[in-house]
Amino acid sequence: MVDHLIEKTLARKTLYKGKMIDVYLEDVELPNGKQSKREIIRHPGAVAVVALTSEGKLVLVEQYRKALEKAIIEIPAGKLEPGEEPKKTAGRELEEETGYLASQLDFIASFYTSPGFADELVYIYEAKGLKAGRVSLDEDEFVDLLEVTLEEAEQLVAEERIHDAKTCYAIQYLRLAQKRS
Amino acid sequence: MVDHLIEKTLARKTLYKGKMIDVYLEDVELPNGKQSKREIIRHPGAVAVVALTSEGKLVLVEQYRKALEKAIIEIPAGKLEPGEEPKKTAGRELEEETGYLASQLDFIASFYTSPGFADELVYIYEAKGLKAGRVSLDEDEFVDLLEVTLEEAEQLVAEERIHDAKTCYAIQYLRLAQKRS
Repeated sequence: MVDHLIEKTLARKTLYKGKMIDVYLEDVELPNGKQSKREIIRHPGAVAVVALTSEGKLVLVEQYRKALEKAIIEIPAGKLEPGEEPKKTAGRELEEETGYLASQLDFIASFYTSPGFADELVYIYEAKGLKAGRVSLDEDEFVDLLEVTLEEAEQLVAEERIHDAKTCYAIQYLRLAQKRS
Repeated sequence: MVDHLIEKTLARKTLYKGKMIDVYLEDVELPNGKQSKREIIRHPGAVAVVALTSEGKLVLVEQYRKALEKAIIEIPAGKLEPGEEPKKTAGRELEEETGYLASQLDFIASFYTSPGFADELVYIYEAKGLKAGRVSLDEDEFVDLLEVTLEEAEQLVAEERIHDAKTCYAIQYLRLAQKRS
């Protein structure tokens, strides 16, 4: 830890406790002794899955994102349930959203999505050995399933129909893996 | 637009209007006619800059992230000012945080960081032709400057000292650019 950068919490006010997020306003003491305020979102974290079919196509889901007021195309993902191991969530979300069961799930990476205001951490897994499972969406979840080549995925990025951090990361990951092999 | 996935807004309640984020709770009508609620964060968007020095080192900043309660190392970034063109913000934030002026800024990509609950869109630029400018941090901003090779950056990812989406994306981008050249 870099001690000289630390911001100490002086007070924390709960602004909202919701279904997916909690919102806090913190009074902090800055490294120079002055005070400031920080707006903070707490989120349980999420998983996302890079899954290639036996034909080498990337499994994607299109869904409406209310925050964006549009549908975008993403790798399958879902938020962590309290206490659930991320790898288990990854397998469950992949099957629920796409109907694919993975024989193997390998951890690729994790990253904070918006460290300036949120603690959401996304764990990314690579699914191998896909076989038929059963789609079972949450009652407020509606998605279209797509399977595309890596070139088609890159075209969707160019068209901004794929336009989120985790999916853009996943596509670069696959392109790098291809160059390595 | 994929019409059959649309969620219609029935009501919108403002939960909080802050300095960096606004928080809303929306009642929505789902594609099947049922109702649900969506928690939504509105954020002005941000820019981030991939900058290589004349020695080919990546310019990074370490800063305390109150949402994470720790310091992490990121590419220089900052939030968009209302009405400011992202490219201009990118040049300004690079100079303010690192003291480097860029002769050229090329757009690389943009992506939503957390489409499940936030509309934050990050624009990523590549800075070329760095020369000396002047550091001028915001009054509540404290950062350490680092310059590392791509291999060192990948090691920082492995150690989770680099641990955010935009910087992990930027490192993959540089590695891919290297493989292409």
